[in-house]
Amino acid sequence: MDYKKRIERVREKFSELGIDALLVSDLSRPEQSVPNVQYLTGFTGSNGYLLITSDDAIFFTDGRYEIQAGQEVTCCEVHIMSKDVTIADAVKENSTLGVIGDHITVTNLQRFESSLSKKNVTVKPVKNIVMDLRKVKDEDEIELIRKAQAITDRLFELIINELVRPEKMTELDLAAEIEYQMKKLGASGPSFDTIVATGDHTALPHAKPRRVVIKNNTPLLIDMGVYLDGYVSDMTRTVWIGNHPNEEFERIYRIVLEAQKTAETGVKPGMTTVEVDKLARDVIANNGHGDKFVHSLGHGVGLNIHEAPIVSSRPETATEVRENMAFTVEPGIYIEGFGGVRIEDIVVIRADGAEVITKSPKEELIKI
Amino acid sequence: MDYKKRIERVREKFSELGIDALLVSDLSRPEQSVPNVQYLTGFTGSNGYLLITSDDAIFFTDGRYEIQAGQEVTCCEVHIMSKDVTIADAVKENSTLGVIGDHITVTNLQRFESSLSKKNVTVKPVKNIVMDLRKVKDEDEIELIRKAQAITDRLFELIINELVRPEKMTELDLAAEIEYQMKKLGASGPSFDTIVATGDHTALPHAKPRRVVIKNNTPLLIDMGVYLDGYVSDMTRTVWIGNHPNEEFERIYRIVLEAQKTAETGVKPGMTTVEVDKLARDVIANNGHGDKFVHSLGHGVGLNIHEAPIVSSRPETATEVRENMAFTVEPGIYIEGFGGVRIEDIVVIRADGAEVITKSPKEELIKI
Repeated sequence: MDYKKRIERVREKFSELGIDALLVSDLSRPEQSVPNVQYLTGFTGSNGYLLITSDDAIFFTDGRYEIQAGQEVTCCEVHIMSKDVTIADAVKENSTLGVIGDHITVTNLQRFESSLSKKNVTVKPVKNIVMDLRKVKDEDEIELIRKAQAITDRLFELIINELVRPEKMTELDLAAEIEYQMKKLGASGPSFDTIVATGDHTALPHAKPRRVVIKNNTPLLIDMGVYLDGYVSDMTRTVWIGNHPNEEFERIYRIVLEAQKTAETGVKPGMTTVEVDKLARDVIANNGHGDKFVHSLGHGVGLNIHEAPIVSSRPETATEVRENMAFTVEPGIYIEGFGGVRIEDIVVIRADGAEVITKSPKEELIKI
Repeated sequence: MDYKKRIERVREKFSELGIDALLVSDLSRPEQSVPNVQYLTGFTGSNGYLLITSDDAIFFTDGRYEIQAGQEVTCCEVHIMSKDVTIADAVKENSTLGVIGDHITVTNLQRFESSLSKKNVTVKPVKNIVMDLRKVKDEDEIELIRKAQAITDRLFELIINELVRPEKMTELDLAAEIEYQMKKLGASGPSFDTIVATGDHTALPHAKPRRVVIKNNTPLLIDMGVYLDGYVSDMTRTVWIGNHPNEEFERIYRIVLEAQKTAETGVKPGMTTVEVDKLARDVIANNGHGDKFVHSLGHGVGLNIHEAPIVSSRPETATEVRENMAFTVEPGIYIEGFGGVRIEDIVVIRADGAEVITKSPKEELIKI
């Protein structure tokens, strides 16, 4: 990755934002990684900041990461923070410093302002311009997402052919098997806690796997993703355990599938994300389940499992769909006390429409 | 857990803070859980806020969690947020609303202030008073941490007796086995990404497991923890693969062990956390490695893997050690290009000193 070029693209926004420098931070994965900073520097540790000035860029971390930063960060000078080495020290006097409002806490802003007050520095919260860049992927990034999803597709094959042993394992056992096998297949780990839900628990969009035995003659919903070299995959499939699916359940499955395919074939660059959401939502509403699709159609994927763009019905989230965006398409119908269906793919937007990079089968309700 | 009582204890702080209501939020585990809110309501989902007023408490989440919140949240009324149902609507006019400065972003504060401006509400960032309560555990919580650590101890036994197959597996393979086995032992998952480091990679305090074969005649450092019913464990052990450890490495092991035991036997209620850190740090410094212990001695554990108190040498973090605090004691020495040793236990502070709840062996450098 050409980190210096990415940093330069951030710097190009300074005059528009009215800032002389930007402190890049990220609160989305505390204790784990700093995606905005990783994007600009390659650093994969859990604590890091990048100060971009008009003519320089300085990376800050703590003593735990001195060796690792020395290996990973080649774009910029590395400073190890201490009482005597602070970010504030590196900020020029009489300047305006941008901070990313979405990724700095109120307490840290206050601390920062007070440590900079002597230097006559104005601290100005700005929008997440790093995410604005990250929203559109370069081909290296798309290739990583594609590889992460390919592992997930192989994993799904393994699940339906071997891993599910009804009446002999719990939802938690299956989730453990899934997360173990993804690592054996080469992933560094799950990109979120794997969802395994059976029975009427499939009606909880964010169900947690339970210590409950997986039974025959019941739906099984699996939502899983992996990390590969920092990039994520994300996929949901809903299957039936047994040979005779409930008819109403199959009917719902077909509605969700139609909603998904309508969005996947209809999405084009230049539309808004709200229009994309509507493609799927209308299908579900026209089939009488409008109130049972309780979440957004999708979300961007990349260094974060949920990143820009949000693909939802909320007008305030509307964004133009652009070439090389990567996001999920995941309509669902959830009926309390009965069950739920969700089908989720990742698409990459190309000039002529969506490239669906998820290859796992979905054309009919799979029976296992 | 008596959630109403916990909420009442938060409310008792209102007059001291000069607020009429408090919005409880938590940014520490985005996409995963909201520990401050879980502590006060029992909600285990990834999106939730609790608005505590002088005479009421209202829980807010989104549509994805409507069913789950109905099952989990019994302390308070549940509101599902939408265009027509917002937190701002529930805030009383002409009041001062506290928000937790550490757990609200600058952007959200600005949004909140503008949506409340018509109601003449002052939004006031305050310290994390929920964490102040969480710092001292009740016996139910200690029991959960103890159970989580007991799983971790059984897991360590399994690791040294069975799981490590030198020359036949990579660091990543071993990490995958560890995270699989913790779930088989009843944990819901890892409380952080398991660290498996061998060779000179042990000198990276936050090493990531690599696709590198585990060799004979090398150190192996494992830092791992589990979640059990929302509470964490955390343990590090450093062992030697083979029968003839490097002498210098053994010497370092003994220094770190002595540092740890000095802190564990010396800590008493009423000391400051900086004094506890110094107990261990002095032993390492007196043995000539003061500059190689590059992190804090420890951190609180509970609903977060890193929570209050911080046990470090930095004066600004100093806190009084109190009965029923639970924190890690984890000195280390890291020598670039050679290797590192860290030994980590969890202690619970009792009237007469530390109860060490970690039971895994450490008295000598284990050879496997």
